[in-house]
Amino acid sequence: MIHHDFLARLAKPNDTKIVLLVLDGLGDIRTAEQTRTALEAAHLPNLHKLAQWSALGRLLPVAPGVTPGSGPGHLGLFGYDPASPEADIGRGVLEALGEGIDIVPGDVAARGNFATADADGNLTDRRAGRIPTEECSRLCAAINPLLPKTAGLEARVYPGEGHRFVLHLRGAALSAKLADTDPQQLGVPPLPVRALGPEAQATAAQLEPVVAAIQRAIAKEPRANRALLRGFDTLPHLPQMPALYRMRCGAFAGYPLYRGAAKACGMTLVACGKSFAETVDAARRSWEEFDFLFLHFKKPDMAGEDGDLTAKVAALESVDKGLPDLLGLGPTVVAITGDHSTPVPLKGHSWHPVPLLVHGPFCSIDGLPEFTERSIVQGSIGTIPSYQLMGLLLANAGRLAKYGA
Amino acid sequence: MIHHDFLARLAKPNDTKIVLLVLDGLGDIRTAEQTRTALEAAHLPNLHKLAQWSALGRLLPVAPGVTPGSGPGHLGLFGYDPASPEADIGRGVLEALGEGIDIVPGDVAARGNFATADADGNLTDRRAGRIPTEECSRLCAAINPLLPKTAGLEARVYPGEGHRFVLHLRGAALSAKLADTDPQQLGVPPLPVRALGPEAQATAAQLEPVVAAIQRAIAKEPRANRALLRGFDTLPHLPQMPALYRMRCGAFAGYPLYRGAAKACGMTLVACGKSFAETVDAARRSWEEFDFLFLHFKKPDMAGEDGDLTAKVAALESVDKGLPDLLGLGPTVVAITGDHSTPVPLKGHSWHPVPLLVHGPFCSIDGLPEFTERSIVQGSIGTIPSYQLMGLLLANAGRLAKYGA
Repeated sequence: MIHHDFLARLAKPNDTKIVLLVLDGLGDIRTAEQTRTALEAAHLPNLHKLAQWSALGRLLPVAPGVTPGSGPGHLGLFGYDPASPEADIGRGVLEALGEGIDIVPGDVAARGNFATADADGNLTDRRAGRIPTEECSRLCAAINPLLPKTAGLEARVYPGEGHRFVLHLRGAALSAKLADTDPQQLGVPPLPVRALGPEAQATAAQLEPVVAAIQRAIAKEPRANRALLRGFDTLPHLPQMPALYRMRCGAFAGYPLYRGAAKACGMTLVACGKSFAETVDAARRSWEEFDFLFLHFKKPDMAGEDGDLTAKVAALESVDKGLPDLLGLGPTVVAITGDHSTPVPLKGHSWHPVPLLVHGPFCSIDGLPEFTERSIVQGSIGTIPSYQLMGLLLANAGRLAKYGA
Repeated sequence: MIHHDFLARLAKPNDTKIVLLVLDGLGDIRTAEQTRTALEAAHLPNLHKLAQWSALGRLLPVAPGVTPGSGPGHLGLFGYDPASPEADIGRGVLEALGEGIDIVPGDVAARGNFATADADGNLTDRRAGRIPTEECSRLCAAINPLLPKTAGLEARVYPGEGHRFVLHLRGAALSAKLADTDPQQLGVPPLPVRALGPEAQATAAQLEPVVAAIQRAIAKEPRANRALLRGFDTLPHLPQMPALYRMRCGAFAGYPLYRGAAKACGMTLVACGKSFAETVDAARRSWEEFDFLFLHFKKPDMAGEDGDLTAKVAALESVDKGLPDLLGLGPTVVAITGDHSTPVPLKGHSWHPVPLLVHGPFCSIDGLPEFTERSIVQGSIGTIPSYQLMGLLLANAGRLAKYGA
């Protein structure tokens, strides 16, 4: 049986609150050059003190050696096996959901980048110098009136942050088996629209004039004269968390992808800033509305991607500073973990298990001294797949009935 | 492939003996109030000495966060995945088997409680003041002659311990999809017989006059004037351990549920007392008859359920005292573990992993100082699903052939 369906058989309501705090990219590694991880290098008195009264362990996002994207990383935390077909969702759809775009089953969405090409049409900047969001909005507003109106396909672009946008397609019998037009390299032109299977040929044929219209609309733009598409996908039919776990689930995340992942799972999206303090403030304002609160903090991942240990340390220290405020809200159970590791030496997501802390009245206190990659290996939770965390949270919150007599 | 079938392909006989000692509810937790677990608080010189020469680890009965009942907990230890459909057995059938009731495939059994109701028929005590076993036997003897004799259904009640009894039904095409008549609360009358699906409507119709007859038979009784039924189930068709593992398997358990679980798996039930010393004595008397001896000791679980750390400590110390006698029998392999944790602070079963000790000539000696929840996390066995223990025991006893050339 699928794990979340097994848990759903046992889930029962209770007057308890669960906070899942996701420090994006939390885990890190030691190398000959980087002898301390961010958790080891940072000054984290509140986090270490909490750890001393918690159960510790590690989450394995997908499988040993498998590096997850942010989508699979979060779906795992929400109780879905990210390697299962049901959880195979493209980033385009997740971001579109997170932008509040009204996607319905059957629609297709893709992520877009505004980019820059030279006179020969070869890409010189895949992010168009990271144009500001206002410029992105202006470009989208210019594009939409020029998109072809056909009976079979309705297309629209939506601005995201900076150079990012979302292409949303609605039509009959659309397929998302479409190749990226983003070549992921410079010095070459964008790739043509291409079906990845016979079932997508009709959609590719419909999409071609849309992509051409986008190209025509921005061809003369000085800052961004190309558009690159990737991650075509349809809206998934995931079983929804409130029904599975009998909890009111709220998502406090400042970035579209994480909002989208939460929405795909049935959580209610709450308006939220991006700093840790703003995220905690938002949780405080909506505290009575939810039983399960997912708080997302992006900065450790960004710092890891930038290879910036100092920034990762600062991000973790900002969490430590705000932690008493979060605990002051009085959650029954608090879990602190990440969707994946983003080690500074790797400058990107990685496969390394992610530190996990679970605090609650019956978590069993491990009595380990600190919340670091070294310490957690001795934790009582051990190393478990991310998708099994939800069972542990429900159990600690008194929300799982006994299995069998 | 189902795990036990995989093991069965490799199982081979050998002149070795395995003792599986189940300390029911063994595992415990630390909380702010209970700073030591029972294993940590108890004086256990023999157990810790054995641990120093053993491999240690932990068993996960079902999945992280999932609290097993005693049935699933034991079926896991016997090599069956308790989350699989084959192992989904109701307590009624397990207890009925354990009481020696001659159940055959197709029969239905349910657990019964004698209870007390007031003049309005509302329940005042769901356990009838825990009437003594003799009173229960007298009530059952009074009920059986009054049960309806029909062509389609043969019904009989069997006394259990105290207020408990078993209702056994035999007939053609019976279904166990029947709702409990036990409302699990006071101040209301027992629930009527009710089918949980169309396939059980005929059985429900046949059962109604039986329940009415039980009710009439005890209506005027001063101590127990109601009967409550729960956990209707049929006899499972589990593959049998002696055939799977090519061992003569004996069960030494004083309580019906555990005897029933062992019998459902094909073990031979041996008459046995309830103290640890009596259990070891019984094993000694039957030592030559079996290759695999399952010894069950209930007291740690009872103490945990009562929230009584002192009693749990005393139960473990009684095991420690008798341990040299058990080891003196000369088993090749000894495993000491539990079917689940019953932490004192929770006063009930829990989801926490269960301590495991495996001792044998080739177990690999971990050299850890003691058998406690803290120590075992560092054990070489790691944390494995309970249903995988059997493979480890067979291997340590030289009873598993190499897989592949």
